[in-house]
Amino acid sequence: MLTVGTEWLVEASGCDAEALGDVERLREVFARAVAELGLQVVGRPVWHKFPGPGGVTGLAMLTESHLACHTYPEFGVAAFNLYCCRERPAWAWDERLRELLGARDVRVRSLTRAFAPAGGAATRAAAAEGAPLHAARGGEA
Amino acid sequence: MLTVGTEWLVEASGCDAEALGDVERLREVFARAVAELGLQVVGRPVWHKFPGPGGVTGLAMLTESHLACHTYPEFGVAAFNLYCCRERPAWAWDERLRELLGARDVRVRSLTRAFAPAGGAATRAAAAEGAPLHAARGGEA
Repeated sequence: MLTVGTEWLVEASGCDAEALGDVERLREVFARAVAELGLQVVGRPVWHKFPGPGGVTGLAMLTESHLACHTYPEFGVAAFNLYCCRERPAWAWDERLRELLGARDVRVRSLTRAFAPAGGAATRAAAAEGAPLHAARGGEA
Repeated sequence: MLTVGTEWLVEASGCDAEALGDVERLREVFARAVAELGLQVVGRPVWHKFPGPGGVTGLAMLTESHLACHTYPEFGVAAFNLYCCRERPAWAWDERLRELLGARDVRVRSLTRAFAPAGGAATRAAAAEGAPLHAARGGEA
């Protein structure tokens, strides 16, 4: 299998409900992740506050792939995705979400995004070298 | 554990390189998924074509969470995410990506987004009933 990066799936529970309905607080989470992992945002992140007691959705396009959040204030839960097609260290999700959202429990899973080489010359060569394709994303924004 | 939805992680390989660099072809994949799963897009999806031989990134915000794609034309690979916080049937990823992108191999993983109840009254009650929180997203766009 050849890799096209790592996906982090994060569910934080026991969060401060007010923070989960506040776009500015969630922007701060994105900003910290971007700064601390050295990510590059493409364009402007998009945010949506669902009406009434509803949650917030945020999506940021990155040259390294994307960062997303969805919050459920009524349950004190926030779900994050970070997909990085270039190698990055794990972020301190547990520590940061406790600090920024008052989370009591943070579940973090990391999964390798990978595929079976389809037999093309480029992928066969990379497979022979055991080379990850983390750096294979064509071009910068 | 209580659930806040399902995440589909999809890697398609052996795709037509030209399709993977063509925003319109990828818009069509999003449009088919949205139509066939009865999803609702919030605002406009954002698309970015990386320069030269680079790939395409697309992000669509949904009332049901989000849909994302990242393509790597030089390797014939496309990676998709679909996160649905409301229950939806599995999409025919394999069949559709063969048809729309010429994929030879499609790997699909589905993961439950879930968290341990933190002890709040609402989550304790839901846990006692064994109730999924799929329908718990507050409000519509």
